[in-house]
Amino acid sequence: MKLTDIYMKFQSDIVVIERELEATVQARHHVLRQASTHLLKAGGKRIRPVFVLLSAKFGTYDIDVLKHIAVPLELIHMASLVHDDVIDDAELRRGKKTIKSQWDNRVAMYTGDYIFAKAVETSTFFDHPEIHQILSYAIVEMCIGEVEQIRDQYNWQQNFRIYLRRIKRKTALLIAVSCKLGALAAGADRDVQRQLFKFGYNVGMSFQITDDILDFVGTEEQLGKPAGGDLRQGNVTLPALYAMQHNEEVRAMIEQALSTDYPDQADMEPILEAIKKSGGIEYSLEISDRYLERAYHALESLPETEAKTYLSEIAAYIGKRKF
Amino acid sequence: MKLTDIYMKFQSDIVVIERELEATVQARHHVLRQASTHLLKAGGKRIRPVFVLLSAKFGTYDIDVLKHIAVPLELIHMASLVHDDVIDDAELRRGKKTIKSQWDNRVAMYTGDYIFAKAVETSTFFDHPEIHQILSYAIVEMCIGEVEQIRDQYNWQQNFRIYLRRIKRKTALLIAVSCKLGALAAGADRDVQRQLFKFGYNVGMSFQITDDILDFVGTEEQLGKPAGGDLRQGNVTLPALYAMQHNEEVRAMIEQALSTDYPDQADMEPILEAIKKSGGIEYSLEISDRYLERAYHALESLPETEAKTYLSEIAAYIGKRKF
Repeated sequence: MKLTDIYMKFQSDIVVIERELEATVQARHHVLRQASTHLLKAGGKRIRPVFVLLSAKFGTYDIDVLKHIAVPLELIHMASLVHDDVIDDAELRRGKKTIKSQWDNRVAMYTGDYIFAKAVETSTFFDHPEIHQILSYAIVEMCIGEVEQIRDQYNWQQNFRIYLRRIKRKTALLIAVSCKLGALAAGADRDVQRQLFKFGYNVGMSFQITDDILDFVGTEEQLGKPAGGDLRQGNVTLPALYAMQHNEEVRAMIEQALSTDYPDQADMEPILEAIKKSGGIEYSLEISDRYLERAYHALESLPETEAKTYLSEIAAYIGKRKF
Repeated sequence: MKLTDIYMKFQSDIVVIERELEATVQARHHVLRQASTHLLKAGGKRIRPVFVLLSAKFGTYDIDVLKHIAVPLELIHMASLVHDDVIDDAELRRGKKTIKSQWDNRVAMYTGDYIFAKAVETSTFFDHPEIHQILSYAIVEMCIGEVEQIRDQYNWQQNFRIYLRRIKRKTALLIAVSCKLGALAAGADRDVQRQLFKFGYNVGMSFQITDDILDFVGTEEQLGKPAGGDLRQGNVTLPALYAMQHNEEVRAMIEQALSTDYPDQADMEPILEAIKKSGGIEYSLEISDRYLERAYHALESLPETEAKTYLSEIAAYIGKRKF
């Protein structure tokens, strides 16, 4: 089964969420409306809403309730991307101009704030305090993750533990929370919620590690930008970390090349080759697979439903995706 | 009575809020903790918490409940300042280095996001959906106000209505909401809540107009920066708007001087003089007073309590403050 089959299966509900996303960001304000619409049109896999819907299948599924948690989760993700693009000075995302490049950094910052606020506003549909607590906890951790990424930039001494904690905050928690909140909003059992949280966390870790691998092995066409962009910006991810820890020569090359602010792509090529040869890619794939295994394991105790099969399929897709 | 007397009266509760603010932003993360603490230490009048406390006096006053709404309101205000300083490229605020100047724009952006998220997290103490709805509505409007300010920058054709709507969103609503939520959290009557909202809205409008006047008439020492900074950055406030509408010569001077990106302070001086001579300051004071009158009026139907006297005093202070 392919990911598209799952989307087909849920198409009518995904359309509901897409419409709700559009309606939510329909600001009266011209620039905000344009910027937000631009962002929505740029697309995205809407993976967090999909996790909400699938997890809700373990309780009482009602799209008109679920959309009030699926939409905030997607908006929070979108808002964080808008702010990331300011930080990374990114011109393109998913092949479309970023808000900061279509307008400017100021518009991007406030559009991010606005989308963020709209996310919180949408979630006020629920009067269940736990939902708000979990949601705001995930946002807080995500912000900490972002700041950690800045702090850890160009830090060649960091270890695996620091990297893993950072991607947990930056990526995995919001996916874990998407699964948990889908189940919670649908009134699923505590134990089911807990297992789905674990599932989402492990899938999220695998997802981010795969992303970090792809940044080294993807072609420019697949990535929409030259390979090695993370490292070039001083972001040390798992393949590079492994290479640096196992090969002093690679470490020296990296430190040397990155001692200038933003090295030429040509200077990056030998480094990318060296990292690939170091075994860092294989090691990262192994770690990613380990998280995937834990994700599957988290599903085991759940009832044998179609939703469970789909969750399994998505996990498999995430672990094996090529771009 | 002076403002300090009111602070003295509420000192022990203001200390509770101050401690709670500190505890709330105590991130495990080093930079975030430093940046947030730096921000708190820079001080501020804590006017929003004070409005929460005074408004709560019309219901059942419990500081351990109220702090969960006073703290988010102050944090939201703080977060917006951090982001504003990025936008305005400001080096100093209240005589202290801004986060963006002590660290950098990236840290400032995420620190703002983090404080914002912490505000939302703190408010999850309440399971009253209306509190969350009102709070998130105020945040959304504030973001729209910020974007409007960017859109309206260097726009010499805007009118009073646009200016007033912008300051309503940027400033007045959060103060209105501080009053309303204080009363709501204390279980005060609906009607009392409504009157306090009106009071806060009008005080907030007067507050911002006074701020905009002071930017023209304050000394460099009082302002901590040269006068006319708003206009110099392309922000058209009430005194300048009035002058431009009543004197074509002033309009021509402004458009001419501001046609360069950031004019010298020397080029600003004759403009500031012309605005002062235009009657724009007096007109703005009149408008500010009109809002103040409406604020007093909103209080009339409320029971004659000490809290009511204090609210009145604060309104008077806000309307008459010199810096």
